[in-house]
Amino acid sequence: MKVFIAGIDGYLGWPLALHLSSRGHEVGGADNFLRRVWVEEVGSQSAIPISSMNERVEACKQYFGQVRFWEGDLRNCDFVSQTIKEFRPEAIVHLGECPSAPYSMIDIHHATFVQTNNISTTFNLLFAMRDICPNAHLIKLGTMGEYGTPNIDIPEGFFEIEFRGRTDRLPFPRQAGSWYHLSKVHGSNNLMFACKIWGLRATDIMQGVVFGTRIDEMNADDRLLTRFDFDQFFGTSVNRYCAQAVVGHPLTPFGKGLQKRGFMPLRDSMQCLTLALEKTPDAGQYRVLNQFDEVYDVTELALKVRRVASQLGLEVEVCNLENPRVEMENNYYNPDHHILFDLGYRPTHNMEAEILIMLKDLLKYRQRIEDKKDMFIPDVRWDTGGRSKVKFISR
Amino acid sequence: MKVFIAGIDGYLGWPLALHLSSRGHEVGGADNFLRRVWVEEVGSQSAIPISSMNERVEACKQYFGQVRFWEGDLRNCDFVSQTIKEFRPEAIVHLGECPSAPYSMIDIHHATFVQTNNISTTFNLLFAMRDICPNAHLIKLGTMGEYGTPNIDIPEGFFEIEFRGRTDRLPFPRQAGSWYHLSKVHGSNNLMFACKIWGLRATDIMQGVVFGTRIDEMNADDRLLTRFDFDQFFGTSVNRYCAQAVVGHPLTPFGKGLQKRGFMPLRDSMQCLTLALEKTPDAGQYRVLNQFDEVYDVTELALKVRRVASQLGLEVEVCNLENPRVEMENNYYNPDHHILFDLGYRPTHNMEAEILIMLKDLLKYRQRIEDKKDMFIPDVRWDTGGRSKVKFISR
Repeated sequence: MKVFIAGIDGYLGWPLALHLSSRGHEVGGADNFLRRVWVEEVGSQSAIPISSMNERVEACKQYFGQVRFWEGDLRNCDFVSQTIKEFRPEAIVHLGECPSAPYSMIDIHHATFVQTNNISTTFNLLFAMRDICPNAHLIKLGTMGEYGTPNIDIPEGFFEIEFRGRTDRLPFPRQAGSWYHLSKVHGSNNLMFACKIWGLRATDIMQGVVFGTRIDEMNADDRLLTRFDFDQFFGTSVNRYCAQAVVGHPLTPFGKGLQKRGFMPLRDSMQCLTLALEKTPDAGQYRVLNQFDEVYDVTELALKVRRVASQLGLEVEVCNLENPRVEMENNYYNPDHHILFDLGYRPTHNMEAEILIMLKDLLKYRQRIEDKKDMFIPDVRWDTGGRSKVKFISR
Repeated sequence: MKVFIAGIDGYLGWPLALHLSSRGHEVGGADNFLRRVWVEEVGSQSAIPISSMNERVEACKQYFGQVRFWEGDLRNCDFVSQTIKEFRPEAIVHLGECPSAPYSMIDIHHATFVQTNNISTTFNLLFAMRDICPNAHLIKLGTMGEYGTPNIDIPEGFFEIEFRGRTDRLPFPRQAGSWYHLSKVHGSNNLMFACKIWGLRATDIMQGVVFGTRIDEMNADDRLLTRFDFDQFFGTSVNRYCAQAVVGHPLTPFGKGLQKRGFMPLRDSMQCLTLALEKTPDAGQYRVLNQFDEVYDVTELALKVRRVASQLGLEVEVCNLENPRVEMENNYYNPDHHILFDLGYRPTHNMEAEILIMLKDLLKYRQRIEDKKDMFIPDVRWDTGGRSKVKFISR
């Protein structure tokens, strides 16, 4: 299948290019390296050094096959339509959005940037599909965070409800918790409407928190590795805990640390995106998948990381931080995730095994984490919008 | 009360300035005349000639009091925060958004413009409130179109539901029907979140279709009149029917013409906005009002306009047009609108009386409508995104 990856240089985009190439798909993609720019802007760096796109493409060609790459801004509709015209994809995976909640909460400029960037890149892909490849399948990456934490089960996108004696199947209400998460809600709403009026087919992935340093396709050559962020902006919980463990820094759940979320290793995220790609929805169908493997609270995860780290002789504490976010710290959380299993998803590793791989990988880059370990502690505050480092608290 | 009107030059903004001034409120406002620009861009004009802002402010001063005006772009956060700092409002009414569904459906550029414009102006006001006047009350104009047409009753913003044996109070799901309507959904979601994290107080008005040429405060002087659009982009149904009747053009419901919507005269919209202003929600409260008087289908309205026009010797047909939109043409529609009545809303005129006033007003400007009557027939198509005039159909 010809698959176009918007945002091919990112944490998920590059592994997906490798994974699909290794399975014989024809891969093209675009990026303007904004993720590299953002991480530099906030003063951090990827723990794992990553190659230039030229080197990446070269290495991929050596092991799996040719990846076509277009450098350009997905907010530019002419660039997008020109690229889609040249490549004529059968599927598009949209990873070309800014993915950070804290980054979006920095100030008015970042809030506006994240929402308008994410709306614009999505619009450009949708209009290009309508005009150039209306039968292609769009897979858009959303987040489980779009749903927030309602006090009821979370179905996959839609639910059948009865209200005052009448029934309807309606989109499940969204209560996202940051300007970034809201941008994904906006995108989901726009996508649902595009499928309705233009008959496009799409899968909207409500993805849980992804963690991991590698997929098997990277084992042959370090030029194939993907980035790994651990800073307050782009480092999500398991990844950040692993980076903390490697440099002997306390593992830092926020607040009570009882926030429950869905998690999935990077390799399984690749498996799931591939399954979604290979099982195309019907024309006009807007399909929503909740994509995660297991639900944990963020303290359980910290304790898991501590346990595995200890096997490697890395002894670290779990020390809770003040919560910089406005969120429930002990929430009911029972989201469905049937559709992926129906599509054939089978978890590959248990979490401890994955964490062990991660810690071993990160030990090689200990100094790069050490150099930026002040980036672990958040200073972007949801409630005041001010910036001041949060403090350690006793649980 | 000191009230700041974002978008003070518009169809609703200017009457609201007059109405509040006449009631003794201290009014300030900003605009960069984009509505005038958009109507010119699409090749139309206001049926009622409107004065420059200088003349408007001068005339208002003569009858009701001083209105302070800042010319500037609400997408510019420095302009917004500077203006809010100077005026220090106790309430802000946000009418500074692009209000047209067909305009947003023209092409990728208009879709992106409408959504990013509307997100940006709302963000700038929210951040200015947070930083400068966190106790002020924001009234944001949304639309009943945010809800779409579900097959169940529509509550006001939130509903208590049971799902798989658990209950929660959740935002009512939104299924908006254009990029414009979706921009208002995005705005509602952003506003709800700002109230939650920053403790702002806000009223989000889900307004029905507003019609009318005047409010009583305008009777003294034509310089006080507000604009009146009748073109396919900015003319909503009753207004467009009245303009059509005045030039002997058939009245043109779309499709089967059985689409049901909520309607309210301009003067009652002013009454309702004022009631919402004068009864402030609590800090942190995100209050949603469904603002309309009565529900009609668009053919009933056309028949009403025909009946009233006939009393003035204006004989017109009702001829349905192909529907350029993708929408249900015979929908269940039973939205609540209790809160406004609880706040004290009392309808002032019946619809026929209001239509009679409108037709008499518009007869004075018959030639201005005649000159642009090719603007009645839509050519922006939801399904293809192409532009071609829709045809008359037999019902």
